Amino acid sequence: MTRADLAQADGTLDVFEQLESEVRSYCRSFPVVFRKAVDWTLWDTEGNEYLDFFAGAGALNYGHNNSMLKAKLIRYLIDDGISHSLDMATEAKERFLQRFKEVILTPRNLIYKVMFPGPTGTNAVEAALKIARKVTGRTNVVGFTNAFHGMTLGALAVTGNKFKRQGAGVPLHHATIMPYDGYMGAEVDTLSYFENYVKDSGSGVSLPAAVIVETLQGEGGLNMAGTGWLRGLAELCRHYGILLIIDDIQMGCGRTGSFFSFEPYGVEPDIVCLSKSIGGFGLPMALTLMKPELDVWAPGEHNGTFRGNNLAFICAAEALRYWEKTEFEQAIGEKAALLEGALQSLIIRYPQLKAEWRGKGLMQGIAFPFEGMAEAVCAAAFRRGLIMETSGTDSEVAKVMPPLTITKTALERGLHILGESVAEVANQFAAQTVPTVGTNQ
Amino acid sequence: MTRADLAQADGTLDVFEQLESEVRSYCRSFPVVFRKAVDWTLWDTEGNEYLDFFAGAGALNYGHNNSMLKAKLIRYLIDDGISHSLDMATEAKERFLQRFKEVILTPRNLIYKVMFPGPTGTNAVEAALKIARKVTGRTNVVGFTNAFHGMTLGALAVTGNKFKRQGAGVPLHHATIMPYDGYMGAEVDTLSYFENYVKDSGSGVSLPAAVIVETLQGEGGLNMAGTGWLRGLAELCRHYGILLIIDDIQMGCGRTGSFFSFEPYGVEPDIVCLSKSIGGFGLPMALTLMKPELDVWAPGEHNGTFRGNNLAFICAAEALRYWEKTEFEQAIGEKAALLEGALQSLIIRYPQLKAEWRGKGLMQGIAFPFEGMAEAVCAAAFRRGLIMETSGTDSEVAKVMPPLTITKTALERGLHILGESVAEVANQFAAQTVPTVGTNQ
Amino acid sequence: MTRADLAQADGTLDVFEQLESEVRSYCRSFPVVFRKAVDWTLWDTEGNEYLDFFAGAGALNYGHNNSMLKAKLIRYLIDDGISHSLDMATEAKERFLQRFKEVILTPRNLIYKVMFPGPTGTNAVEAALKIARKVTGRTNVVGFTNAFHGMTLGALAVTGNKFKRQGAGVPLHHATIMPYDGYMGAEVDTLSYFENYVKDSGSGVSLPAAVIVETLQGEGGLNMAGTGWLRGLAELCRHYGILLIIDDIQMGCGRTGSFFSFEPYGVEPDIVCLSKSIGGFGLPMALTLMKPELDVWAPGEHNGTFRGNNLAFICAAEALRYWEKTEFEQAIGEKAALLEGALQSLIIRYPQLKAEWRGKGLMQGIAFPFEGMAEAVCAAAFRRGLIMETSGTDSEVAKVMPPLTITKTALERGLHILGESVAEVANQFAAQTVPTVGTNQ
Amino acid sequence: MTRADLAQADGTLDVFEQLESEVRSYCRSFPVVFRKAVDWTLWDTEGNEYLDFFAGAGALNYGHNNSMLKAKLIRYLIDDGISHSLDMATEAKERFLQRFKEVILTPRNLIYKVMFPGPTGTNAVEAALKIARKVTGRTNVVGFTNAFHGMTLGALAVTGNKFKRQGAGVPLHHATIMPYDGYMGAEVDTLSYFENYVKDSGSGVSLPAAVIVETLQGEGGLNMAGTGWLRGLAELCRHYGILLIIDDIQMGCGRTGSFFSFEPYGVEPDIVCLSKSIGGFGLPMALTLMKPELDVWAPGEHNGTFRGNNLAFICAAEALRYWEKTEFEQAIGEKAALLEGALQSLIIRYPQLKAEWRGKGLMQGIAFPFEGMAEAVCAAAFRRGLIMETSGTDSEVAKVMPPLTITKTALERGLHILGESVAEVANQFAAQTVPTVGTNQ
Repeated sequence: MTRADLAQADGTLDVFEQLESEVRSYCRSFPVVFRKAVDWTLWDTEGNEYLDFFAGAGALNYGHNNSMLKAKLIRYLIDDGISHSLDMATEAKERFLQRFKEVILTPRNLIYKVMFPGPTGTNAVEAALKIARKVTGRTNVVGFTNAFHGMTLGALAVTGNKFKRQGAGVPLHHATIMPYDGYMGAEVDTLSYFENYVKDSGSGVSLPAAVIVETLQGEGGLNMAGTGWLRGLAELCRHYGILLIIDDIQMGCGRTGSFFSFEPYGVEPDIVCLSKSIGGFGLPMALTLMKPELDVWAPGEHNGTFRGNNLAFICAAEALRYWEKTEFEQAIGEKAALLEGALQSLIIRYPQLKAEWRGKGLMQGIAFPFEGMAEAVCAAAFRRGLIMETSGTDSEVAKVMPPLTITKTALERGLHILGESVAEVANQFAAQTVPTVGTNQ
Repeated sequence: MTRADLAQADGTLDVFEQLESEVRSYCRSFPVVFRKAVDWTLWDTEGNEYLDFFAGAGALNYGHNNSMLKAKLIRYLIDDGISHSLDMATEAKERFLQRFKEVILTPRNLIYKVMFPGPTGTNAVEAALKIARKVTGRTNVVGFTNAFHGMTLGALAVTGNKFKRQGAGVPLHHATIMPYDGYMGAEVDTLSYFENYVKDSGSGVSLPAAVIVETLQGEGGLNMAGTGWLRGLAELCRHYGILLIIDDIQMGCGRTGSFFSFEPYGVEPDIVCLSKSIGGFGLPMALTLMKPELDVWAPGEHNGTFRGNNLAFICAAEALRYWEKTEFEQAIGEKAALLEGALQSLIIRYPQLKAEWRGKGLMQGIAFPFEGMAEAVCAAAFRRGLIMETSGTDSEVAKVMPPLTITKTALERGLHILGESVAEVANQFAAQTVPTVGTNQ
Repeated sequence: MTRADLAQADGTLDVFEQLESEVRSYCRSFPVVFRKAVDWTLWDTEGNEYLDFFAGAGALNYGHNNSMLKAKLIRYLIDDGISHSLDMATEAKERFLQRFKEVILTPRNLIYKVMFPGPTGTNAVEAALKIARKVTGRTNVVGFTNAFHGMTLGALAVTGNKFKRQGAGVPLHHATIMPYDGYMGAEVDTLSYFENYVKDSGSGVSLPAAVIVETLQGEGGLNMAGTGWLRGLAELCRHYGILLIIDDIQMGCGRTGSFFSFEPYGVEPDIVCLSKSIGGFGLPMALTLMKPELDVWAPGEHNGTFRGNNLAFICAAEALRYWEKTEFEQAIGEKAALLEGALQSLIIRYPQLKAEWRGKGLMQGIAFPFEGMAEAVCAAAFRRGLIMETSGTDSEVAKVMPPLTITKTALERGLHILGESVAEVANQFAAQTVPTVGTNQ
Repeated sequence: MTRADLAQADGTLDVFEQLESEVRSYCRSFPVVFRKAVDWTLWDTEGNEYLDFFAGAGALNYGHNNSMLKAKLIRYLIDDGISHSLDMATEAKERFLQRFKEVILTPRNLIYKVMFPGPTGTNAVEAALKIARKVTGRTNVVGFTNAFHGMTLGALAVTGNKFKRQGAGVPLHHATIMPYDGYMGAEVDTLSYFENYVKDSGSGVSLPAAVIVETLQGEGGLNMAGTGWLRGLAELCRHYGILLIIDDIQMGCGRTGSFFSFEPYGVEPDIVCLSKSIGGFGLPMALTLMKPELDVWAPGEHNGTFRGNNLAFICAAEALRYWEKTEFEQAIGEKAALLEGALQSLIIRYPQLKAEWRGKGLMQGIAFPFEGMAEAVCAAAFRRGLIMETSGTDSEVAKVMPPLTITKTALERGLHILGESVAEVANQFAAQTVPTVGTNQ
């Protein structure tokens, strides 16, 4: 009997099953009712404790109820600070803008205008696409295989996941999906495909307004853009007058080790999308950054009710304190090394699983070529009190994605559980030997 | 010198002008930096006080920092309640679902499955369109002239505002815009126009999957659907197998007097979109309600990072206390009558302005046929410490939209300021006599 | 047993049934194999004779095997004149161009550049739409309810017929279908609908590149544009900078009495589409005429293999002789009067049929509000040796459309047969009294 | 002074320049007025003689005024045979259907239903796409880089040529352009690229209804599908339930040596498009062949005025006599060998031109990597009385495409002129050494 079956049997999720839409998803993997959380620990309503290797899909990089942020937030509420302000000017927003410039942009020699496009990642992407189309006067935008950019129709059109695309219920237009780095196998230069389509007069693909790309595909299976590839892409864009949009919604805010995931690549995107952990406390907030010369918006040309989530601004400004010094990045790097070592060891320990390491920073995982194996590992982990999710359009990667603030001790504890879980699954899958899922990386 | 000029001159908005995108809009009408707010009162950083007839564009129906909601929110934070949960099951969400059923759905004999489509109105609309298309297998959706449903490409395609549509940068497909009630003048039955297109084999418009409609167009100029018209539309939908989606994002949560704006019409939509004030405290949250037989979603077919904004769930559940008894609705009705009387008096007092009353409940306004007049009224009001905005694609309506919790005293105080503002503008516009803006209602 | 059944029974159409696609249509109404034709008479392989009130759907305005044209054609063939020339210069094409200018354009004070867009009407329409979009830089084109412009995707998108549109297998984009004159009933000014959509900032319909319109809807039920309506449309187009395209493919070449159907209206379209009878002998040929300032095509930007059908050019040039003097037009007018008188008499004779006269020139018909009645009339006529077809998306009009060269005697003979056919059907339908088909005119 | 300049100077083309649209194209390459033609010889109005290596872009495979066909045509005209019949049954059409079955389909063990989709290639393609979408219920169709399928919007969407696509004036939807064989260089298997997109759940490209492909890209630069590639494509289609459409409009009717170009490949397409030389005499005619189980058309779902061009049916039926015995195919093969030998010799003689041989059957050419060189060769040939055109989106290939009926003597005469022309150009281009045009094959 699975945990989900148990939950169903004992009525834990009755209210959700009766009242909430069938579209609900994560609650099926983690069939308990959560009540409370601190840093990397959650508790359900029955008092069971869980270690968090999921971090709100990247929205909780600073952990649950981070005490530094929470103190600011409660103080702001007690003082009757403005909660909701659309795009009116508020003290909280002003402070965030100043801090974002001082702590993030200026030290990195980046000059961007900041747009608050609505509180979610898909808003940030839709706004990025709009401005790219307005600036260039072109309609087509290039996305990449296995990319994930959001669920609204504009963002969905540049998303690779066919199941999500199918959900649109309409054909998706004005987008071309090109092969991501490694999509055709390690030896094939997919950029040359793309460039052929751009330069050849018979390719049938019109010059795109922009390219939108993730440096590491968090939902698409932890495929990573190589340095040469991303630099080549940036150069190709520059050469042909195509705008480069980096969707750093999941990979930004330190997930791969640096604030922006593209920093180590040495590329400077024209437009950057941020969301998830930018609000610090898991509160809805998103940004679209654009080079000043691209900021040709007319006032109100894009809007939205929840652009001014001031509780998020308060936490967002405070969270930037992590980025004032280099210790935080260093610590991520150390934990990333520890994590990689543990995962690689696991892979070596079970050669019969033909598993493959993937990722960067505190976004790493193990890809399994056997259908259902990654899900089985995550389910085994959850039974042991560890929250992990899969990645990939075929759920082929077991993903480790803890809060960046996790201690080494907690990280090791979680990795120990993961080890046990892989062992359990390895035993079960002993008989099964034929790979059935493509691993496009 | 205008207040905006002053603000520019004295550097009040320097940070915003330098760092924030040109797309910002409301901060241009209200060029001060807000700090604090309670109920229907805001204060700027210099201590000036403002009366709020805007209510966060409908997101603050229960006022700023509503003390009842705030107490619950702070308590939840102190207890380390889960803040962010994607679509995992949490105690906060469970309680909201239960309360929503008990307080809202059951007493109104409504049976809906509840979907959390992401935290904003446009998410709720995109999800509604997706499921309507999936259920019917059709692609076309009918929206109405002057409708406003959101800024992402799916929602924008059923929005009437050309300036916003133009912002898409691409042609918008899979939608047909039909004339709203009164669009062709009071005497023309626009439903017959629509029905002709549906039933005639030569109309070139394929049978739509759904119709999406607002009962009162909050952004489109306070045009209201007549009872006969909306019932006729519902009957037409039923007859031809078209799903009826009511976008109650701005008009729901009591804005027009009842929890759902469609209650007095006696129609029962297949799908309902809610957002703005559903979270109670101005926190991002949205719902897509659908009849159980329409809930054919596959798990995860639509998703989003901020579907589980538990701080909003806490406030949302608490805010439903206003709807347990009938006193709240009655009070809205009384204030609505007071408001209508005041606006009608103003219109009568200045016949030369050819103004026209519009609206319902605590969403009322005065339409002016002279270009720029409504904006001038709002600017004059702001100079007197009253926050008001315009409505309509030509900003032709001065809109009064206070928190529903406002006292009669405060409401009267604001209306007094509005009276002075109209008087000021009437004097300025004395020489100007030719109507220049169409008033399509 | 119907004639079609008989044909099936006796194997007349075996070859077609076994080898030709199910898409075949007219051969089902006229289930015989035709061999020979002269002027307005056809013979089948069994020697039966038929009178032609169909004229190749308007492609045979000068009759079958018109002796004047045939002589030229045979001479050209004997002389080894160029048959196929793409868009190379040939003597035959040169002569056509000169004659078209001298006989048609100059006397009517029209100045157009002539484009050979491919040999069919839908080619002419696709070319017209392309150049309108190129010139204006806009994408949307307005077509009208019940319009018919062709089967390729560009032309189909501005066609009203839902059955034909459905055949596309894809949603059709970049077009808006507006109500044709009379679509909402005689008393409703449909132009005001259209203008509202154009001028109102909240109508959701972007400024169109062009409007494409027929003066009389030959396939759509013989609905006719009133003079005031078409002039108003032309004025509206001029006012808003929209190009006016008149699709004169079926109504041009004299069908309604003048060479261009729009002549009596006093409007001057920006672009004109011609085909069907322009080639004179029923040979594939089409023209797109455009005002010289619109001729911004790049060489080869639109092309096609059969643009240079020189056999058609030879006949086309010769056919223009009909237009050198006014007698031809006068004769059409006289026959049109005779035809109208006969149809009106029939309508009066059978008031129980609630029939309605429609049309102009030698394109007239009787609309029946009873489903299947017009088809029954045409079937009865065919059994009597008269070839007629229906018009309208519900086949609700019995259409009379003889060669323009028909003699009065032959016309009267056909009308006599039509009278008998209506009588037969009136008897059959005696019991049926409830109108079931909308007559949108 | 070029011949075009001369023509302009002496007024030869005055009528065309004044009256015909700027879109005209071939008449700019061949600036004379043609009058007469027999087999492979043309004469202009001044009596100059030209040898035809162009064959009406493939519409004149049996030569100009083929005496066998002409005799039948004149006889039919004299007998007042039906000229124009829409899709009514005629004796001429019946005979064509029978002959097509007996001579072409049955001997090749092919079973197809025959559709007359309108008289041009683009009609045949649009009909093929419609039925493929109807049968599968899917919307997306895959075309290939450098493909050419027609100028109407449906066919244009699967065409690779960007200049032609741009001419649409609207974004083209419902199509994906995949790399043709050799597009990424000889060593890259482009089918694996395609298959990745089909099978991978994250590729963003939905399962296509159909693939449309040419075996040899006549307009796209004479790129040829390898046997393995085309068979692999057919297998891929079969495996995934995708319909295979072969566009044999230019390559069919013997151009590459066999009646259908796909015969030597051993593949059996689901749908075949034919046009150009199917009518035999250069008269507009086209066919869409489809496997019987795909013939789910409703009557009249696709139609068109010129589907019944009986003059073409007469010639088409007669032309099939060439295919009754094997001699015709053998002769093509012999001439093809002669042609290839001559072209290869030329390439070897001028190594500095870095030219490359391409093609098959009597569709061969020389690709030049230097911009403008192929055009220069054709211009030089025309000055010597030889009509040749270029191929390729950058006009990089000088194409030899004589009537299939040409004698070896005439062929050799033309090749001699071609040799002189290449020599002339080689001298002129002596100084120029840097390749500037991509040769994607």
